[in-house]
Amino acid sequence: MLDTPHPYPVINGPRVIERHQSMAAIGATGRGGVNRQALSAEDTQARRLLLSWCSARGYASEIDPIGNLFIRRIGKRPDLPPVMTGSHLDSQPTGGNYDGVFGVLAGLEALESIDDAGLETERSIELVVWMNEEGSRFAPPTMGSAVSAGSMSLETALGVVDVEGISVREALDGQLAALKGVGRRPLGSTGHAYVEAHIEQGPVLEAERQKIGIVTGIQGICSLEVDITGFEAHAGTTPSRSRQDAFVAAMVLLERLRSELHDPEDVLRFTVGRFNVLPGSPNTVPGHVTFTIDLRHPGADHMQRCCETIRKLASGTIERCAVSSRLLLRSDPVQFAPWIAEEIRLAAARHGAPHRIMISGATHDSRYASCKMPTGMLFIPCEKGISHNEAEKVCPDDLTIGAQVLSDAVCALAQTAK
Amino acid sequence: MLDTPHPYPVINGPRVIERHQSMAAIGATGRGGVNRQALSAEDTQARRLLLSWCSARGYASEIDPIGNLFIRRIGKRPDLPPVMTGSHLDSQPTGGNYDGVFGVLAGLEALESIDDAGLETERSIELVVWMNEEGSRFAPPTMGSAVSAGSMSLETALGVVDVEGISVREALDGQLAALKGVGRRPLGSTGHAYVEAHIEQGPVLEAERQKIGIVTGIQGICSLEVDITGFEAHAGTTPSRSRQDAFVAAMVLLERLRSELHDPEDVLRFTVGRFNVLPGSPNTVPGHVTFTIDLRHPGADHMQRCCETIRKLASGTIERCAVSSRLLLRSDPVQFAPWIAEEIRLAAARHGAPHRIMISGATHDSRYASCKMPTGMLFIPCEKGISHNEAEKVCPDDLTIGAQVLSDAVCALAQTAK
Repeated sequence: MLDTPHPYPVINGPRVIERHQSMAAIGATGRGGVNRQALSAEDTQARRLLLSWCSARGYASEIDPIGNLFIRRIGKRPDLPPVMTGSHLDSQPTGGNYDGVFGVLAGLEALESIDDAGLETERSIELVVWMNEEGSRFAPPTMGSAVSAGSMSLETALGVVDVEGISVREALDGQLAALKGVGRRPLGSTGHAYVEAHIEQGPVLEAERQKIGIVTGIQGICSLEVDITGFEAHAGTTPSRSRQDAFVAAMVLLERLRSELHDPEDVLRFTVGRFNVLPGSPNTVPGHVTFTIDLRHPGADHMQRCCETIRKLASGTIERCAVSSRLLLRSDPVQFAPWIAEEIRLAAARHGAPHRIMISGATHDSRYASCKMPTGMLFIPCEKGISHNEAEKVCPDDLTIGAQVLSDAVCALAQTAK
Repeated sequence: MLDTPHPYPVINGPRVIERHQSMAAIGATGRGGVNRQALSAEDTQARRLLLSWCSARGYASEIDPIGNLFIRRIGKRPDLPPVMTGSHLDSQPTGGNYDGVFGVLAGLEALESIDDAGLETERSIELVVWMNEEGSRFAPPTMGSAVSAGSMSLETALGVVDVEGISVREALDGQLAALKGVGRRPLGSTGHAYVEAHIEQGPVLEAERQKIGIVTGIQGICSLEVDITGFEAHAGTTPSRSRQDAFVAAMVLLERLRSELHDPEDVLRFTVGRFNVLPGSPNTVPGHVTFTIDLRHPGADHMQRCCETIRKLASGTIERCAVSSRLLLRSDPVQFAPWIAEEIRLAAARHGAPHRIMISGATHDSRYASCKMPTGMLFIPCEKGISHNEAEKVCPDDLTIGAQVLSDAVCALAQTAK
């Protein structure tokens, strides 16, 4: 598959670990995790730290109109589409130190270890930092890669506001002002291939004592917001049967959904992660409730049926309240390029890392990258599958093995001129 | 029951309505309601207007150390404890024109109509304006009556500050300086009986086309906060059976509570008014949920049992999450004096006003008045039960009927020398 035989650079494990520690200091909550939400001051600081490492190497950096950041190591053939690798630096409000960060720093390590080995690659290699993968401050998640792929319009994304009314446009302008010396490029960057390394965020690899997950696709996701409008009333004077209690209506709806979507196989993922009650006063019957439903399944047809069930049940009148729902995000299951998966498998085998083929339960920017170019992913284990949590932990050896396998795969892909 | 046969003065309906209009101009928001919070300039202005009407009649006025205002119409036997009636003139920040005001103006009308009829009563009659019933500027509500009854210390109450750091003591000093010609009296005023007229603030009278609610007591209230601790996890990767989803645990607990506390009679008031989910991200399994339960019932034993049921069910482990609860507030149900309720019933019957016996769902100053003297309340309907809202509305005819029934009851009580 390689045009020419070449050595695979050995990565610098301690450097990878140390850079994770440096990143973990930015937005550190003091409880072991970070709060570094998209386009926050902390997110900007993380990008500046990354850029300082990259400029020391002489890599050029560019940012696109939705804030995706691209760092380029020039190859012998700059005319060829580059190999891309990366992930994200933004976190959940109570996020861990590896989610996203590992993919960025392992990608950087691939570039640096190729440098350190004095190797020239045929293709250029680009490290990508996608904007707002988490979607916790600005919904939906994977916003930067979705806009890059044309799945979400730039205008729509820029208009999204956080709970304080700050728009993506305003927050991004603030970040751009703080990222001096970064060039601009248009939307829609693409390449020869995209490989993303990530922690599994699930319990499978650890339970099976595997070191590398070769990810062949991503399960489908459907994200909805349910809106329930009742009528505020005095908690002491209003009998139940004349209330329009939006909270009670939400309970009734959720009981129906739990019953309708019951899945004894435990494959369906159903999560209510955000739930707002207004006016939020202990002695006032709630007049308004909104909540999100995050639904995932590897089967496209089953996902579709579940989504339709929710749309049907979350409509009309429940307990005298008006119920409606809107789709925030929907994406079908994704299949990655088998030849990239094979490149990852070869790298894992080369280093004697136990590995398995798997589907990703979480969505990733590679979903949208795969719309633009052949894509693959690799996973490393994380302790007890804990992620989106300050207690997220990864064994240092696994960081090193994962970075080495990624570096091998990126290097192999970058040496392919065809 | 009356010592001597006597005529019941006919109240002046247009005067009652006009005085409501005059009061509604003080602190008017321009959206149909008022902002006349306790001890504000507007509250002082309202008291001055009332005092101007009272001094024109020659009634003496006194104020106690917590700012409760007493206006006295002397009877034939000033040595006997007076009959007291009244309510409050302070409002919520977005309050209506009848909550509290009706009880004060109907009480004033009772005094004036007795005057106009040239009637002498055995006992003196005192109109009371309680300080800070709403508790919106200075917490807690019913502060003036609570201090008068000795349920809250004067020093504690005077030390309460509003959001701007102004204390009750400072604000009260300002009001006292503006209320010239008002005498002082010590705390702890009491009387032969206290009768308070109020709008229902609930939907029952309107729905049943009743004109007078004969209030036999105030239901008990028990306010709790439930705390559920699970574990944050990724919504896409974590199977249901290995989640510690604090939101799911809350649902399961609330289903159990709904089932255990099911009340086909619809007497129990159960409200979840505040419900917080952390971290509140659509794609993270919630690690922490807190919510409030506001529980009310007229029966002390039943309240106690319901409260114990909640404490028992909201403890231990539910869906692998740790559940606990704490009591925020508890006050027992209050029973008013049946012989005062009977006086109200006789008055309603005398005027052909459809009436029913009921419990007050909301708390009132009469809760604390009842600690000092035999107490009763009457309710009039308000549109759709809407209160604590600028949209609060009362039909003018209902103001008149309510004032007449109050006047009759006050008059009858004031003629009883025993």
